[in-house]
Amino acid sequence: MEIISENACFDGIQGVYKHKSKSCKCDMTFAVYLPPQAKVKKVPVIWFLSGLTCTHENAMTKAGAQVWAAKYGVALVFPDTSPRGNSIANDDAYDLGQGAGFYVDAKESPWGQNFNMWIYITDELPELIFNKFQILESEQAIMGHSMGGHGALTIAMTLPERFRSVSAFSPICNPVNSEWGIKQFTAYLGPNKDTWRSHDSSILVKEKGFHSRILIDQGGADNFSNLLMLDTFVSAANDSKQDVNIRVQPGYDHSYYFIQTFMESHIEHHSSFF
Amino acid sequence: MEIISENACFDGIQGVYKHKSKSCKCDMTFAVYLPPQAKVKKVPVIWFLSGLTCTHENAMTKAGAQVWAAKYGVALVFPDTSPRGNSIANDDAYDLGQGAGFYVDAKESPWGQNFNMWIYITDELPELIFNKFQILESEQAIMGHSMGGHGALTIAMTLPERFRSVSAFSPICNPVNSEWGIKQFTAYLGPNKDTWRSHDSSILVKEKGFHSRILIDQGGADNFSNLLMLDTFVSAANDSKQDVNIRVQPGYDHSYYFIQTFMESHIEHHSSFF
Repeated sequence: MEIISENACFDGIQGVYKHKSKSCKCDMTFAVYLPPQAKVKKVPVIWFLSGLTCTHENAMTKAGAQVWAAKYGVALVFPDTSPRGNSIANDDAYDLGQGAGFYVDAKESPWGQNFNMWIYITDELPELIFNKFQILESEQAIMGHSMGGHGALTIAMTLPERFRSVSAFSPICNPVNSEWGIKQFTAYLGPNKDTWRSHDSSILVKEKGFHSRILIDQGGADNFSNLLMLDTFVSAANDSKQDVNIRVQPGYDHSYYFIQTFMESHIEHHSSFF
Repeated sequence: MEIISENACFDGIQGVYKHKSKSCKCDMTFAVYLPPQAKVKKVPVIWFLSGLTCTHENAMTKAGAQVWAAKYGVALVFPDTSPRGNSIANDDAYDLGQGAGFYVDAKESPWGQNFNMWIYITDELPELIFNKFQILESEQAIMGHSMGGHGALTIAMTLPERFRSVSAFSPICNPVNSEWGIKQFTAYLGPNKDTWRSHDSSILVKEKGFHSRILIDQGGADNFSNLLMLDTFVSAANDSKQDVNIRVQPGYDHSYYFIQTFMESHIEHHSSFF
């Protein structure tokens, strides 16, 4: 692991690191914020999964999360959203290929070689994080935005024993029925829709649910609401009596201005389970 | 004035706007954050002047200021740092020309035509701001970072009747004796150093001072400290018995991670004078 940068921030450290990923077969960059409490003891961690086109950097610089992570004494991990590089497969569209890993392990050519973000986020990167940083493996939570909200919800419901809590900003809730999902699952997983189901949070919340209250915020003025399909998730959660706190925030859009506005509320939510 | 974007943020509005500037003879972009209190009354304003290479966007997205502006009920204005465009003079160096206006009105060729940031910030942009936004002309403060800290200090001490308070993050304190200053003042103002003096805060604090406590934070690990020359300002302030609160924050560097860490403290400082 190589240190790209480390900056003092709210009496903790905002670091950016690079390592050779076995899952993605390329160098991967990620960011970790360690709060001041990590100077003297291991601290809980919240994973933040980002949305389409983002790298590790967007949420690190724009989500306004460090101030609350320092207040509540939690670490933050900001992974990248896909493998990257000139030798890695890509597509001209912003929503396929690099920057659009969708948190699945791709099976189809040309994506299968490198696009293994599920195993990267759930297996490879955690091993590195718990090995290198003062972070408690026993106290984890996960959240994300848009495509990353989809990732957070599906990963949490698949690995409930690992995560105390899960939350999302404007998640893609029903990718098997959305243009943000069908295109990518077809490309990455192939045409057999049975293989898509374990990556759809509206299906998972009905089949598996989650053991703590799921917090979701979406902007009332979000231009992408027809692609996010929050209604489908709400119906499924109601059907399965999942404990949820789903809030549509009037006037807010899909941007980091929306995310930063409600970031404290999400970090407070997760901290209540640590 | 053209609206580029407006996003809901902490129950207020983060907007980006463009207008034809008479002073700079080109289109200029700026950002305004209006806190929720501006929905029902005019609010005080803090001007934030940015540093070398920055546009209106850097502090708007990375300084973590909106959360505190909403809490304290103050508007924020983020101007650009120079005129910009293909037809505008420029230099290959990052610290001269576009992105490096240094908050002076240039006299020398080729800069004199467009690089009039002093009159733009102190005259043209205020007129537009007070005309278009729910902002109180009678309650203003000013702050800035690095080159923008230089701008904030020199503007406040030149127009003390306008500003209730002034603060700076890592300001360029003595440009007439720094490589961040000599090069630019020579290019913009010409070789006669007498014309530089009114743009040097270490000179101004001795000659004019300021009527309220000046707050300055600088990182103890700031790589540019030899260019910033805080010591010179401290000596001058001591000599003239200026009321100052100058803090060197151990471990912090020159970045926005440093700025965001102490932003609440600066906004609280200014709010105490409104």
